[in-house]
Amino acid sequence: MVDIGSDLARVFHPRSVAVVGASASFGKWGQMIFSNIVAGKFPGRIFPVNPKETSLYGLKVYPRMQDIAEEIDLAIVTTPAATVPGVLAACGEKGVKGVVLITSGFGETDQAGKQLEREIVALCRAKRIRLIGPNTMGILSPHSSLFATGTHSRPRTGEVAFVSQSGNLGNQLIHWAENQNIGISLFAGSGNEAMISCVDYLRYLEEDPRSRLITLYLENIADGRAFLETAVRVNRSKPIVVLKGGRTEAGMRAAASHTGSMGGRDAIFRAACRQAGVALVNEPLELLELSAGFSSLPLPKGNRVGIVTLGGGWGVVTADACNERGLQVPSLPDGMVAEIGRLLPDFWSRGNPVDLVGTRDLEVPLVAVESLLKWDGVDSVISLGIVGRVEMVRLLLQSTREVDPQAQPAVLDELEAMAEAYEVKYVQRIVELMERYEKPVLGVSLARSDKGVVRSVPGGKYSGVFYQSPESAVQTLASMAAYARFLER
Amino acid sequence: MVDIGSDLARVFHPRSVAVVGASASFGKWGQMIFSNIVAGKFPGRIFPVNPKETSLYGLKVYPRMQDIAEEIDLAIVTTPAATVPGVLAACGEKGVKGVVLITSGFGETDQAGKQLEREIVALCRAKRIRLIGPNTMGILSPHSSLFATGTHSRPRTGEVAFVSQSGNLGNQLIHWAENQNIGISLFAGSGNEAMISCVDYLRYLEEDPRSRLITLYLENIADGRAFLETAVRVNRSKPIVVLKGGRTEAGMRAAASHTGSMGGRDAIFRAACRQAGVALVNEPLELLELSAGFSSLPLPKGNRVGIVTLGGGWGVVTADACNERGLQVPSLPDGMVAEIGRLLPDFWSRGNPVDLVGTRDLEVPLVAVESLLKWDGVDSVISLGIVGRVEMVRLLLQSTREVDPQAQPAVLDELEAMAEAYEVKYVQRIVELMERYEKPVLGVSLARSDKGVVRSVPGGKYSGVFYQSPESAVQTLASMAAYARFLER
Repeated sequence: MVDIGSDLARVFHPRSVAVVGASASFGKWGQMIFSNIVAGKFPGRIFPVNPKETSLYGLKVYPRMQDIAEEIDLAIVTTPAATVPGVLAACGEKGVKGVVLITSGFGETDQAGKQLEREIVALCRAKRIRLIGPNTMGILSPHSSLFATGTHSRPRTGEVAFVSQSGNLGNQLIHWAENQNIGISLFAGSGNEAMISCVDYLRYLEEDPRSRLITLYLENIADGRAFLETAVRVNRSKPIVVLKGGRTEAGMRAAASHTGSMGGRDAIFRAACRQAGVALVNEPLELLELSAGFSSLPLPKGNRVGIVTLGGGWGVVTADACNERGLQVPSLPDGMVAEIGRLLPDFWSRGNPVDLVGTRDLEVPLVAVESLLKWDGVDSVISLGIVGRVEMVRLLLQSTREVDPQAQPAVLDELEAMAEAYEVKYVQRIVELMERYEKPVLGVSLARSDKGVVRSVPGGKYSGVFYQSPESAVQTLASMAAYARFLER
Repeated sequence: MVDIGSDLARVFHPRSVAVVGASASFGKWGQMIFSNIVAGKFPGRIFPVNPKETSLYGLKVYPRMQDIAEEIDLAIVTTPAATVPGVLAACGEKGVKGVVLITSGFGETDQAGKQLEREIVALCRAKRIRLIGPNTMGILSPHSSLFATGTHSRPRTGEVAFVSQSGNLGNQLIHWAENQNIGISLFAGSGNEAMISCVDYLRYLEEDPRSRLITLYLENIADGRAFLETAVRVNRSKPIVVLKGGRTEAGMRAAASHTGSMGGRDAIFRAACRQAGVALVNEPLELLELSAGFSSLPLPKGNRVGIVTLGGGWGVVTADACNERGLQVPSLPDGMVAEIGRLLPDFWSRGNPVDLVGTRDLEVPLVAVESLLKWDGVDSVISLGIVGRVEMVRLLLQSTREVDPQAQPAVLDELEAMAEAYEVKYVQRIVELMERYEKPVLGVSLARSDKGVVRSVPGGKYSGVFYQSPESAVQTLASMAAYARFLER
């Protein structure tokens, strides 16, 4: 017998979707999710279900599930809790494979809610329906163009799977992932996990060829032993990154009040995760930062870092962050000093960090990065301020634009365009260098950018990753190095 | 005799400025800084000095300092190191009060450079010239419309003073401060601190009525004892926030290579700072985050926090962060539960964090925040997801805009406008509440925003502060609570 819990392919890659409770009233869940699925251009059939409507956005509306003649893989249900057993029974009749139950008012409320939750789980088990939720904000499956959440987020199709026990937190992080150009294979708001639990997601993702990295926001783990056993196994082939809410007394109380169940003892959980090589983070945005690195870069083979910087202060700050997170910043041997020194003014730093001392020769940063990469004394490179310089160039040009009547706008525009073109070329060369040397290069832009952290290169095995601050780069690198060490054990 | 080191008023608020080395060649320091000063609309007289030019941007250019008849308060010098003694001698003749020496090639290079640096310091002392730098990227003095750096940054005029021993890092942080709407009273790239040291800046800022908060990026402190003695005193009236570069072996090596001098032992420095109540941060962006809070909010009188959240998961994450940084999240007494509960569905969290359970009544968040503020059980409030919701509303509307032919764009636009208007009103009310209860409210937007962290309200004693992530809010609050504790000792 196939374990229905981990057989989620038809949920995330359905051929047809029914939306029970689909509506035209803005602000209702049945409107938000339905309009988002339609706007997302889901390529399969979409069946809105609502006895009070006949047509929505040009699609025929069915009064009840039973009125649909075609096969339905996935039903998304938004109708009130009291109606849910009836809807699920109809789903069972129709042979629906999976249900995403948005509706709240179950185990997260009171004893009656818990009882109702037990009933619907029994109903789904009997009919072999995979039940996601209840009390979820939905799922995303970019590879199948299925965008079944309330908010219009369109993250890039990619290899990061994200399962979140908090819907709001999940939705907002997905929105950020879109802004940061992080590729997503799957998002599931797992809600109350009445049937499909975080362990089931892990088992499914272990086999899912589209997912290479697994990120989890967890508050309550119903079966801690099963979770850790599964995580230990899955983490060997696909790195797992966990943000555990409820690490402290206040956090645990907060989690208990909004999910209705009590989390386990944190210290034991954390120790077990570390043992299993699972990366733990403390902040929601760190989930994204680690996702960007793990999914875009080769793993470092050790913890030694070469630093290339435009600006001495940033080099100092980065070196400090490396040492504080257990990464080494080895001194350069004389041969390296001579090699890199040929490119730089006499008074350069002669060490690691390599301070480019404001050099304007555009080849120098690339040569410096490559010199470090081919040296067997470091396992990775952090490159600061080169991508991102275009923002500084723009600021430099701004005053001239405003006050110099002799300056030709076309010439200034060209300078800006050159800076932008250089960034594109730099990213491409960095991706090539990572492939040649199989060492990660983590960029730090030191500037706000609307291009996002991940910069894809057509045909590239890896992608460029450019964080806004050194700390993000260092933390990600430290986690990747720890994971690489774990794999070698 | 007045201590010339701390008498910097004429440097930061000059009546006239000479730019020695002013140039029309884009890319030269003499062009960047000169064009920036002119573009910044400095209201005093500006005298470009360059024997090879006659006119720049409509201003008469003088061959030498001596050729200027008028009095000059400040000279900004960008000519090569070898020319500097002559330029300083001319400045001395003219009675120039201060020099910002951009030029590098002094103490940060070799023995000859160190010797030259000693000579120019002696020259300045003899002529009572206050020397900033050398090897600095310039200064900003927004209250006097003096923008004497290379990059076109225009931070809001405000009360945060920032002194940085790294020019690049300083410039980039100022650019970020502008984006985040953090008000700046003064920025100084202090360069090699050959004469005016971080201790002098502290002494000057202690008396500067425009500065209420002092932020420092330091790598090397020439006189540790004087620094700490001064910091202890100044910190009692104006909070000091320090990022110390060179905390680790790698960072110290990096700092030594780019400034030419060795930092002190970090552990002792840190212990002394803690003793003195000086806030220490580890990341450049934290300097800005703390600046935003300290300069915009009342100090909390203790470490107890009330949390109001849209979304349970964010409440959990924030409660964890509070506990992990020594802040308490007290349970609500029955009276409070009843009071807040009147506004919320039955199944609300009944505790702290107060989870607004997706309520759409726009008054509820404000009532919840005020209920907490007037309760004597908390000293501060963190409010999550209310400002920032407009971004989510936009995402909700996007799908409808794309697929619903019946939806009237004007109606959707009005919904969006309402959400925006509510945010403006919310910020205003929060500022009023802070003034009424003299407790800080730290917002978390959970969304990227181009409005920046600080939102000023006309006539407000305080400003709204809305961080992107809970961690930033919690860290700032913890630092402010620690400072308040220090003041009470």
